[in-house]
Amino acid sequence: MNYYGTPVTNLIEELRRLPGIGSKSAQRLAFHIINMPEEHVEHLAEVLVSARKNIRYCKKCCTLTDRDVCPICSSDKRDHSTIMVVEHTKDLAAYEKTGQYNGVYHVLQGTLVPSLGKGPEDIRFKELEARLDSSPVKELILATNSSLDGEATAMYITKKVKPRGIRITRIASGVPIGGELEYIDEVTLSRALDGRIEL
Amino acid sequence: MNYYGTPVTNLIEELRRLPGIGSKSAQRLAFHIINMPEEHVEHLAEVLVSARKNIRYCKKCCTLTDRDVCPICSSDKRDHSTIMVVEHTKDLAAYEKTGQYNGVYHVLQGTLVPSLGKGPEDIRFKELEARLDSSPVKELILATNSSLDGEATAMYITKKVKPRGIRITRIASGVPIGGELEYIDEVTLSRALDGRIEL
Repeated sequence: MNYYGTPVTNLIEELRRLPGIGSKSAQRLAFHIINMPEEHVEHLAEVLVSARKNIRYCKKCCTLTDRDVCPICSSDKRDHSTIMVVEHTKDLAAYEKTGQYNGVYHVLQGTLVPSLGKGPEDIRFKELEARLDSSPVKELILATNSSLDGEATAMYITKKVKPRGIRITRIASGVPIGGELEYIDEVTLSRALDGRIEL
Repeated sequence: MNYYGTPVTNLIEELRRLPGIGSKSAQRLAFHIINMPEEHVEHLAEVLVSARKNIRYCKKCCTLTDRDVCPICSSDKRDHSTIMVVEHTKDLAAYEKTGQYNGVYHVLQGTLVPSLGKGPEDIRFKELEARLDSSPVKELILATNSSLDGEATAMYITKKVKPRGIRITRIASGVPIGGELEYIDEVTLSRALDGRIEL
């Protein structure tokens, strides 16, 4: 298997460890990389290391960012009294792309996973409590995924935060726009029925 | 779009330039990388640079390798009087995986592409001629792809090498093993018919 020599074999093996990269893709990528101009490869390597080196958690919302406090938490154009709680930075990114949300976020960096013994101390929940302690919040929007773990996490946060008297909401579950009913699972369909609105 | 900060945005952009990596994959990969232990990322970066730095063309067969002369050309267990001509090192790798070929290779590092003005000087053809000049060769097996450019290249090599009186063969075209006729294109089907063998 060592047709390209050890350095390239090592590269193929390293690439295969990345998510979504199978052995064919790893070989194709490695082949592309060894054909790139040497300075481009060096640039790619620097960008990799720099991204990892400069990443940290925002001191306020715990999102992954390159600053102590992320641009959203630093902005005075955002409504800091509304906090949307998401699992990961990619969920924050998804909501930002809608352009419809002007509050701030709190990124849990995970969910409770009772089956694996992942509890509240494994997610950024105490950081959320600290935020609620230190500044006035009107509404907490729970936007964890509608998976089993996401729901468990939303329920846990609700139970813990409810006594503070803050308004707590959950994003709606239902039929996705453009989705055809016949292809949608029963749980989603029941949710869509339960959550029906008056017209 | 800059939710993760500039270093991560740069990483996503660099990853997107790689073949087969779309914008969703680039985001997922970048997200994975910034969550890897820092020393793993540094290792990956080193492996990238090292693979590119140590790659060179074998002085005999022009395959991509990490030595002056590749392991196949250096081996005295291979039949050096039979040369299989392929387009790329990945084609060599494909044939090596069969375990059925014991000759050596010549890697053209491309094909003639008449439509783009890529001629014989753009592939490793003069290196092949030099090999034929310097040592006795019994058979040249043309294993370029059965694409338009691969066929044109095989025809060109045949025309040029034929006067030397060396046996020149072309790998068979036909129906792949396990392929169902109804899904196979007409050109392949015609080839399979033309190349039919007596039973």
